[in-house]
Amino acid sequence: MTTFTFQELYDFAHAVFIAMGCPAAQAKTATDTLLSADLRGVDSHGVARLSGYVRLWEKGRINANPNIRIVHETPSTAVVDGDAGLGLVVAPFAMKVAIEKAKTAGTGWVSVKNSNHYGIAGHHALEAVKHDMIGMSMTNASPLVSPTFSKERLLGTNPIAVAIPANEEPPYVGDFATTPAANGKLEVLQRKGGDAPLGWIQDKDGHETTNAHGVKEGGAWLPLGGNREHGSHKGYILGSIVDIFSAVLSGASYGPWAPPFVAYLEPAENPPGEGLGHFMGAMRVDAFRPADEFKSHMDNWIRRFRNSTPVDDAQPVVIPGDPERAMETERKANGIPLLAPVINDLNSLAKKLDLDLIR
Amino acid sequence: MTTFTFQELYDFAHAVFIAMGCPAAQAKTATDTLLSADLRGVDSHGVARLSGYVRLWEKGRINANPNIRIVHETPSTAVVDGDAGLGLVVAPFAMKVAIEKAKTAGTGWVSVKNSNHYGIAGHHALEAVKHDMIGMSMTNASPLVSPTFSKERLLGTNPIAVAIPANEEPPYVGDFATTPAANGKLEVLQRKGGDAPLGWIQDKDGHETTNAHGVKEGGAWLPLGGNREHGSHKGYILGSIVDIFSAVLSGASYGPWAPPFVAYLEPAENPPGEGLGHFMGAMRVDAFRPADEFKSHMDNWIRRFRNSTPVDDAQPVVIPGDPERAMETERKANGIPLLAPVINDLNSLAKKLDLDLIR
Repeated sequence: MTTFTFQELYDFAHAVFIAMGCPAAQAKTATDTLLSADLRGVDSHGVARLSGYVRLWEKGRINANPNIRIVHETPSTAVVDGDAGLGLVVAPFAMKVAIEKAKTAGTGWVSVKNSNHYGIAGHHALEAVKHDMIGMSMTNASPLVSPTFSKERLLGTNPIAVAIPANEEPPYVGDFATTPAANGKLEVLQRKGGDAPLGWIQDKDGHETTNAHGVKEGGAWLPLGGNREHGSHKGYILGSIVDIFSAVLSGASYGPWAPPFVAYLEPAENPPGEGLGHFMGAMRVDAFRPADEFKSHMDNWIRRFRNSTPVDDAQPVVIPGDPERAMETERKANGIPLLAPVINDLNSLAKKLDLDLIR
Repeated sequence: MTTFTFQELYDFAHAVFIAMGCPAAQAKTATDTLLSADLRGVDSHGVARLSGYVRLWEKGRINANPNIRIVHETPSTAVVDGDAGLGLVVAPFAMKVAIEKAKTAGTGWVSVKNSNHYGIAGHHALEAVKHDMIGMSMTNASPLVSPTFSKERLLGTNPIAVAIPANEEPPYVGDFATTPAANGKLEVLQRKGGDAPLGWIQDKDGHETTNAHGVKEGGAWLPLGGNREHGSHKGYILGSIVDIFSAVLSGASYGPWAPPFVAYLEPAENPPGEGLGHFMGAMRVDAFRPADEFKSHMDNWIRRFRNSTPVDDAQPVVIPGDPERAMETERKANGIPLLAPVINDLNSLAKKLDLDLIR
């Protein structure tokens, strides 16, 4: 584990995007989006993923200089074609459109096709909060999850984020994959050689397993809830709604046809749409009641929940967004730790693109 | 178990609403909404709940002749004041407003205050499907659920429904409480004297318990996910988003202050809002892409998932909405079975309101 300053990692990632041929403004947006994951502690979605984006670009599956544009719209909706650009750039474009729509129509809803992995969902939702709006963001993803009763992988971990402004309190930020845990946690167990908790994944025959390599060996993640008795059909509903809003509404590829993030897996032949899909929403809070009134009630909501009696005094009740914000403060002050394999990966990338080594 | 025709139960419920003083059009709407639960197999939310509504009306907490109205609006949003009316009537009013907004703005979003229990979430979402729109419906409810790490009941079972039109296939209808299972299933176990599965509820000290009476004895439902390791913080996010969209946006009472459904529990003193809240949404599918194109892709989505390889050949993969639709067909043809205590309850109601006995 070696610690880097935010600025070191920012400059490195920015140089990579410039080397790929991203125009300056897009390289900046992509870097802002990617680094927000490292700052907020979602290490699997930050610079650790940089070489993955580059491999997709090398294969021609990411367009470094896309013409991102609105292809259909109404007063409160739009469909955006990402032109195979980085999701890190396409999603902020779409969120801006949603925010602009909300300014005049009260709300804005944008479904996106022909995109790629967009970083962390919460980053995009938080953009709306700057405008006194509730922000929503979701995306479909490479198939890793089996619906209840199925042994096929038909859905991604399909995250949902909702960010809600308050007044004196920091914003509420819910940001979660629609599986029992994040895939990054499974990767940690694989490296350590540990068992996965029962209720996370199933093996290739569809039986719950503690084998942390179960998904790699032909199994699948279970939907949030784990099994039918504990509500896995609800996690299946959540994951499929994300898939339909992000991809069937926009014209992206959905379900098992969603393009894989890893470059060594080829996309499906004859897919039913173009690329990956996202869905972004923005709702002006004063489209419902005066913003000050709403935000004061959010303060009241947040304080009541944060101060509720905990089961264990050592573990207070958490407001969604609290842990990631604390992490961001800590990492801005003290730097971002990276594992040795990630550093090696970034240095290989530097050599390939003729950039300075990260250290 | 005695079986009644749909029409018998419909006429009985309608007579009850008329006896309460509901205007004719509202009595019809309330009956349509209530009976959709009996038809779709959600027995806890149908005629079994009728006497509960009457007790709230007797206490003056339900207004049988409300002036339901829009109190704030933008092109794509509105806030509806339910004037303490039956949620069974207020929610359909709000969904109509959402649908009308969507016709011109592309989408419509309505937050509702000063309402009461609104029946099953899926019924309201399905209204939008008739107009080639995606329908969404959610509501807050009496506090029964503890956030992750808390031993207080701060949230209701806060359901979410999403209904999506297809072409040749029937619509996709996801409709779920944001807890591991529905409260009605716990009531069944209480009657039978059985144990609850571990991971559904906690006792008054916040420890997971199999005691089916745990909630009644001061415990609480766990959020979907069950415990932190299995993603209960995600269920907590879902339940709290429903609470905020339904009640903080509209000006209803939220969190632990949401008014109780049972008449013997008094509402909180100095609540932060008025009554219960709902949130309704309608999105025209052709606000995103041509409706025929969208609906054909939904057919493709539905067929791919329905035909996916099952873990067990005896239990095929289910599309959300399939079981309730099968139940509706069955019950329209063969009638609706009621348990003896429900029949007795309806007959007590008949005597109280001077109506004919149900049988």
